[in-house]
Amino acid sequence: MRHFIEVSDFSRQELTNLIDVAKDIMENPSKYADAMKGRLLATLFYEPSTRTRFSFEAAMLRLGGQIIGFSEAQNSSVSKGESIKDTIRTIACYADIAVMRHYLEGAPKLASAYSDIPVINAGDGGHQHPTQTTTDLLTISMEKGRLDNLNIVLCGDLKNGRTVHSLVKALSQFENNTFYFVSPKELKIPDYVKSYIKESSFFEVSSLEDILPSADVLYMTRIQKERFENPKEYDRLKDLFILNKNKMILAKKDMIVMHPLPRVNEISEDVDKDKRAVYFPQAKYGMYVRMALILKLMKEKEQSKDDFEDSRHQLYSTCDNNKCVSNHEKMDKVGFGLLDPEKHIYTCEYCDSNYAM
Amino acid sequence: MRHFIEVSDFSRQELTNLIDVAKDIMENPSKYADAMKGRLLATLFYEPSTRTRFSFEAAMLRLGGQIIGFSEAQNSSVSKGESIKDTIRTIACYADIAVMRHYLEGAPKLASAYSDIPVINAGDGGHQHPTQTTTDLLTISMEKGRLDNLNIVLCGDLKNGRTVHSLVKALSQFENNTFYFVSPKELKIPDYVKSYIKESSFFEVSSLEDILPSADVLYMTRIQKERFENPKEYDRLKDLFILNKNKMILAKKDMIVMHPLPRVNEISEDVDKDKRAVYFPQAKYGMYVRMALILKLMKEKEQSKDDFEDSRHQLYSTCDNNKCVSNHEKMDKVGFGLLDPEKHIYTCEYCDSNYAM
Amino acid sequence: MRHFIEVSDFSRQELTNLIDVAKDIMENPSKYADAMKGRLLATLFYEPSTRTRFSFEAAMLRLGGQIIGFSEAQNSSVSKGESIKDTIRTIACYADIAVMRHYLEGAPKLASAYSDIPVINAGDGGHQHPTQTTTDLLTISMEKGRLDNLNIVLCGDLKNGRTVHSLVKALSQFENNTFYFVSPKELKIPDYVKSYIKESSFFEVSSLEDILPSADVLYMTRIQKERFENPKEYDRLKDLFILNKNKMILAKKDMIVMHPLPRVNEISEDVDKDKRAVYFPQAKYGMYVRMALILKLMKEKEQSKDDFEDSRHQLYSTCDNNKCVSNHEKMDKVGFGLLDPEKHIYTCEYCDSNYAM
Repeated sequence: MRHFIEVSDFSRQELTNLIDVAKDIMENPSKYADAMKGRLLATLFYEPSTRTRFSFEAAMLRLGGQIIGFSEAQNSSVSKGESIKDTIRTIACYADIAVMRHYLEGAPKLASAYSDIPVINAGDGGHQHPTQTTTDLLTISMEKGRLDNLNIVLCGDLKNGRTVHSLVKALSQFENNTFYFVSPKELKIPDYVKSYIKESSFFEVSSLEDILPSADVLYMTRIQKERFENPKEYDRLKDLFILNKNKMILAKKDMIVMHPLPRVNEISEDVDKDKRAVYFPQAKYGMYVRMALILKLMKEKEQSKDDFEDSRHQLYSTCDNNKCVSNHEKMDKVGFGLLDPEKHIYTCEYCDSNYAM
Repeated sequence: MRHFIEVSDFSRQELTNLIDVAKDIMENPSKYADAMKGRLLATLFYEPSTRTRFSFEAAMLRLGGQIIGFSEAQNSSVSKGESIKDTIRTIACYADIAVMRHYLEGAPKLASAYSDIPVINAGDGGHQHPTQTTTDLLTISMEKGRLDNLNIVLCGDLKNGRTVHSLVKALSQFENNTFYFVSPKELKIPDYVKSYIKESSFFEVSSLEDILPSADVLYMTRIQKERFENPKEYDRLKDLFILNKNKMILAKKDMIVMHPLPRVNEISEDVDKDKRAVYFPQAKYGMYVRMALILKLMKEKEQSKDDFEDSRHQLYSTCDNNKCVSNHEKMDKVGFGLLDPEKHIYTCEYCDSNYAM
Repeated sequence: MRHFIEVSDFSRQELTNLIDVAKDIMENPSKYADAMKGRLLATLFYEPSTRTRFSFEAAMLRLGGQIIGFSEAQNSSVSKGESIKDTIRTIACYADIAVMRHYLEGAPKLASAYSDIPVINAGDGGHQHPTQTTTDLLTISMEKGRLDNLNIVLCGDLKNGRTVHSLVKALSQFENNTFYFVSPKELKIPDYVKSYIKESSFFEVSSLEDILPSADVLYMTRIQKERFENPKEYDRLKDLFILNKNKMILAKKDMIVMHPLPRVNEISEDVDKDKRAVYFPQAKYGMYVRMALILKLMKEKEQSKDDFEDSRHQLYSTCDNNKCVSNHEKMDKVGFGLLDPEKHIYTCEYCDSNYAM
């Protein structure tokens, strides 16, 4: 059985199919209005996230399905210290498919290993948030008509923004995309993300104005004062990274501005009325791509072999990342897959932390 | 597009139509069982209110629609400091109509100004609660067979009871209604409410017994000990304002007793079995009138011009009411409409606070 | 009208019918997919219990019905100090049937006395949890093919486990069942439970190994360290009461292991893969038996005479159990039914506490 724990669980072909189905749903909603009649989606939100929860719930309801779930762990048995494994095994008795958001990295991956029903990762700590990436891909495909031959400018906190990391990874699979990273030095894009892109296709830029004129896609992210070693530094730099009406003048007429939302102040409100601002439509695309995802996972009956098992090379008792679910749930061994045979880099099966062994 | 932020958003004709539709739903529920099939209602409760939330959710579900929502702000993105404007713009991507309860006065009004879907005010702080008023009108119409030629006694906290204020305003539009206000001096009905009624049609009374024999409708409200300057005063006075079996003996056989609920102790339980007590049926009427309201707003496709804009006379940067949403959300200017040309009284577009300018 | 407050509300015949309907639903789900179309279930959870709430919500949704409700009292009007009586009378305006979980003993019983719709007890403090018992009966019937001629071993905390008490009571109505109670001395099965069983049909055993070979059904329960007068005692004894792979070797090939869940550590994970472990299927049976229960209560139109009233012998102003709802809600008198005419034992109508009078 298939799950959706990270974007790489789907091939490039599967991602493009997903986008095509989402587009068909937008054009022919009535065709899908009863597709999930009599089916239940469990929304297991161990930390609150209204936007993501609403998007999944609206997706299932618009497919004619129904919802059970909780929106914060306090309301749930987990407060009685039940293990994630037991929780998912019980949920699988009541629901046909589950969406999990968890503060621990790898929690949805662990759940999927013990689940009789498809599990979708709706965000696990700072680790993965794959349906945000599929949302972004659908948005670009809809607004630009393509996923290749694009100049993509990513601006803000590029170090901690997980959605940026997996978007770059996904878009680098398509031909002739060039990436421009605009961020303060404390919040630079990590090397492992650059490793997805071939040398000549990315550039690190110090100011938004310089690069805006050539951008096809501008992807803005939250930039939190607290992230700066010295908060004064933030006040000094923020004008370089905040998008406003004046900067929009520099951009192409057909450029698009994206943002995962919620936005704080990195995009000033005077940009909202600009037709190039697509961050609210982006939210709507997120609902449709999740409808397509639910349909896909519910259709796939055949048991899938756990791809990880095959590439598993090492087993250790723990992972050194203290946010990794393997340090919070009882388990015999943690698997570490071989990431880089030359440098002997291994990666944790749950949180993807890398180690030289 | 139409919203329902305060009772005066609807004309007298629209209110009577709303009541007629509610009655038709009660008589022919099956006719409406699928009216909202495939539509989603978002219930945005920034403060808890089970009764009101259940009433709206039951209304939508009995129309064949579905629900997404939150029942307290902590579970929602707003805890991440997202603005009301951004929240409603996102919700509008997922849902077809929204109900908002908020602790800030004018919050639903602000939301409606940025919303692509109809917004219903389910209570904004101490300001407005229009669907309680439509509930009260349907209850009187059902139980008394008319909305005019009534002796209406309102008892308890008439100063802080927003539902009382807008009920008086609504009923004063109908012919030959007389109002009797029974309250302790600290909790008298405000002058601005009296200004809705013509001089000869209202009286302030000190005790409930005195006026009960001539009442057609008795509207009881919560009377909170804390409201009294001197709590001992409460114990001395409360017998004057608490309804019990003995007082009911004084009332007409066809009088009705109403209460917005929840009641604390202002109506003793020995009254519950009296067939003149209609405060529980009143709750049921509330569900049906909300079904009619959802149907009305969803039907009205055409964009409505913002009536306020036309009557707007003054723009200032802030409103002096610190509970007004304009002091908590970023906005350029607050509009002040001319309420009283003689006395030069202006009213805030969000919280309706009055100022002489 | 019928309610389901404790297992004894249903006759043995009704319980077996309930099980038969549950089995028919499992075999022909589509036959029941729209049975509750247009009907609303209110889930009133005054304390959180995800498992039980999900089970009821999934049951109603799989019958084509809909849900309104709250999952903890804080989100509800009860935080405004509304009485249970008023709450249920209001809920009855919106919903067609209600499920209540409450921290006070007898709260659902009180609600049922004031409700116009069927009320189901989903657990009231340490008192009753009847749908767990119907779940257990369906599980045994499905997995063993019978409810009689069984050797039933109950292990763990038999003193505080309400589910154990009412399961023993229910199974003792069926022929030739023998009960084996395995527990530390501090947590022995209470005498009143033994009084349901005839002398020759139960035995108290000190260790699980000794009795396991002859068991047809092993019912494990949570055993909380805190329950021990001396926690060290727990560490010394726990091996006697924790089930693991090695102990399973002693058991029959067709024995079944049950647990109400959530489990903490009384069953080690190495047992989960054993096909005799049925505690997760048990959760699924719980959903189906609740579907049957909802169908039964919704079908029974006729008003049922309150059986309690008939057997009521004494009225007093209070019950001595400070967790009894009668000490927390305003009420004239509490009824005490005659339980044992010889010993003059009377039982409280709400919490079933016994008193010699």
